[in-house]
Amino acid sequence: MTSIIPKIEAIVGREHVTTAEEDLLCYAYDATNRHCRPDAVAFPANADQVSDIMKLANEYRFFVVPRGAGTGMTGGALAVQGGLVLVTTRFSRILAIDTDNLVAEAEPGVVTGHFQEAVEEKGLFYPPDPSSALFSTLGGNVAECAGGPRALKYGVTRDYVLGLEVVLPTGEIIKTGVRTAKGVVGYDLTRLMVGSEGTLGIITKIVLRLLPLPETVRTVSAVFSRIHDAASTVSEVVRSGIVPRTVEYMDQSAIRCVEDHLNIGLPIDAGAMLLIDIDGSPSAVEATLERLVPICEKGGAHEIKVAGSDEEAKELWKARQAISPALFRLGPDKINQDIVVPRSRIPDMVEWIDDLRRRSGLTIVTFGHAGDGNIHFNIILDKRDEETLAKAESAVQDLFQKTVALGGTISGEHGVGVSKAPYIGMEIGVAELALMKRLKAMFDPNGVLNPGKIF
Amino acid sequence: MTSIIPKIEAIVGREHVTTAEEDLLCYAYDATNRHCRPDAVAFPANADQVSDIMKLANEYRFFVVPRGAGTGMTGGALAVQGGLVLVTTRFSRILAIDTDNLVAEAEPGVVTGHFQEAVEEKGLFYPPDPSSALFSTLGGNVAECAGGPRALKYGVTRDYVLGLEVVLPTGEIIKTGVRTAKGVVGYDLTRLMVGSEGTLGIITKIVLRLLPLPETVRTVSAVFSRIHDAASTVSEVVRSGIVPRTVEYMDQSAIRCVEDHLNIGLPIDAGAMLLIDIDGSPSAVEATLERLVPICEKGGAHEIKVAGSDEEAKELWKARQAISPALFRLGPDKINQDIVVPRSRIPDMVEWIDDLRRRSGLTIVTFGHAGDGNIHFNIILDKRDEETLAKAESAVQDLFQKTVALGGTISGEHGVGVSKAPYIGMEIGVAELALMKRLKAMFDPNGVLNPGKIF
Repeated sequence: MTSIIPKIEAIVGREHVTTAEEDLLCYAYDATNRHCRPDAVAFPANADQVSDIMKLANEYRFFVVPRGAGTGMTGGALAVQGGLVLVTTRFSRILAIDTDNLVAEAEPGVVTGHFQEAVEEKGLFYPPDPSSALFSTLGGNVAECAGGPRALKYGVTRDYVLGLEVVLPTGEIIKTGVRTAKGVVGYDLTRLMVGSEGTLGIITKIVLRLLPLPETVRTVSAVFSRIHDAASTVSEVVRSGIVPRTVEYMDQSAIRCVEDHLNIGLPIDAGAMLLIDIDGSPSAVEATLERLVPICEKGGAHEIKVAGSDEEAKELWKARQAISPALFRLGPDKINQDIVVPRSRIPDMVEWIDDLRRRSGLTIVTFGHAGDGNIHFNIILDKRDEETLAKAESAVQDLFQKTVALGGTISGEHGVGVSKAPYIGMEIGVAELALMKRLKAMFDPNGVLNPGKIF
Repeated sequence: MTSIIPKIEAIVGREHVTTAEEDLLCYAYDATNRHCRPDAVAFPANADQVSDIMKLANEYRFFVVPRGAGTGMTGGALAVQGGLVLVTTRFSRILAIDTDNLVAEAEPGVVTGHFQEAVEEKGLFYPPDPSSALFSTLGGNVAECAGGPRALKYGVTRDYVLGLEVVLPTGEIIKTGVRTAKGVVGYDLTRLMVGSEGTLGIITKIVLRLLPLPETVRTVSAVFSRIHDAASTVSEVVRSGIVPRTVEYMDQSAIRCVEDHLNIGLPIDAGAMLLIDIDGSPSAVEATLERLVPICEKGGAHEIKVAGSDEEAKELWKARQAISPALFRLGPDKINQDIVVPRSRIPDMVEWIDDLRRRSGLTIVTFGHAGDGNIHFNIILDKRDEETLAKAESAVQDLFQKTVALGGTISGEHGVGVSKAPYIGMEIGVAELALMKRLKAMFDPNGVLNPGKIF
């Protein structure tokens, strides 16, 4: 690698490449808490530079790993086999927000939350809202096909990507998709790139579809004695034709953990809490609330709060947003999974997890996007305790087996990366995996882009 | 081929293969009015039979062309190089409509309109509504990524396909995607198949996402003296945050043509008519109408009708639905294109088309999905008149050039097939086309599936 650094410097400029140990350390981590030291880190400024780097990588056979903000949950941005980490920090411009056509164009290094604010200032709306939105980048979101609570009503990142500029692993710069509402010319390279976890190309520009900003959002919280009642209520809400913007839930352990952390008077004896957002025009939202509250009551909720103001809504959401940081009160390490089951199977899954908790003695906290059947399953532990770690790993294996048996998927939002690579065969068949590997080999014949991921 | 027929008969049963001249003639056509006689037609009943046929095709190197109802507009179902037409008529079962999870599973030969009725009976909604829905099949819709008027609010077929069962050109049967609201495990083979126009695989099962059926739909028609005012009003409606279910428009020639045909008192001196559907809860729809009507008035509409009942709405839609058949009053042949421009560029496009009409003397009728910027551009002619035909072909070339220059796409709904294959290079670049061809070669190394399409 040492002999190649000057060539990379010649492409991006000397000040935009580093091999300093402290820098390599910073770019060795992501949200998985794994540690993979790269050989160098580069900060290109445009697609041509990325293209030149990829050509160099193919000539000298070194690995390139694209990286946004490093908030990924499955190791997509980790240089697991060393090589050059290519950071998109300098791709930080919002290039256009077209209010007439509800389309925006942005570079991949734009932070998702900044982008959301920018379009909301113009009365528009970019729905995908991964919990990392304050830090994560659009490029990373597209590469992982990020989701978030609002996916229930609005879908995931995939549903908002109209087109891309991508540098292929072999260095060609391609444009995919359209800038219009519709477009069906040629194969859908756009959606093939979305969710390919940085293994088929490096995104250098993104064309996104926007929506008008909903006029109103109202928040409802509902407390249930039994988590099964909460789960059944979610099904009942959807069956009634109501499409909430979000339906989030917290189980008892999540409620208790947050209450210990924040002391805001959460109902620690409750089995579960639902947090439901309804958006739309004020009259429509009002009419929906009038139908929603009785459904929650009938479903067994014993405490229902309808936020009267934005401040009250924020207060209700505070608990949900505090979960991830609060979890670390229970132990230094966290194994988290983002399984999805068909919505109607949530009660089965919840019962099975309760049983797993009893059987294993593990500290398990669940919360998530109940409306989507997307359950964030967390085991809190100290990884130095080998016995518990082994138990946890076996529990994850069991969890995935149960998930697939219920007709679900082992990842709704986080992707496969390195964390779930050992399990992919539980969901994806032999012929399908072979096809995906052929696709990877076709795009990246020398295997230089983001190796060691997915398969 | 003669020697191969018995082998195909052995796979699907003798009564499900035909080489009778009258059958070959029936399966030689689609909605493009081209004529490509296949060598044989087979009606397999399941994925295993399709798989066996594809293996045979690779062994004996004959072409296989999948076909739904043959309503495609660009020749996707035509055996342009002969071979076996594989019809999906026997894949006609709706396998499941899961009202709890808003998911359905169906075979590709199910007629889209039947499917819509079946889910609506259960209070659910399958939004994609190509004009061919009464005849076309789900399989064809998925293969072409069909759109329709409701795409403005609800998106296109792509947005409803969760998963597929597909027989690859080499005969492997694969399952793609998920049966859940979210899923990001592995490459997105599902969306790669959607819109691939029957060239990457034969769809044998489809998992579709459903929505709750909107409670109410209200229809508004607005008549404008100048088509530019109509186009600007569409932009204004969207800019105001209203998301109609559909915004359809007809230009003066379309209005006159339909009036000649139906005699229903359409405003033949008007420059354009808009037909706007709003759906949702009754209160929300009412509130939206109260905002919509003034926007139309301010935009220059001099006659606005709000349908008070379903019958009145049907009456208003009658004109729009009669366009396609009515066009044949103007001439025996039709060259139709489904270009899309950014919504705000519709006035530019309309002006350019007016000019083209004057310059060329051609009979040009436009109508379409104004909300999406999706314009159905029709030249009515007698193809035996070679001079007019040449003029029409040159006009199409100019139209595509203008479309791409305005940031648009040469096909919003119909795909490329054979009709647009000569023009694909106007929109898709050299590197992108090369990549698509490598994809096709990877999926179909012997080039046996639906040859001569797209590229």
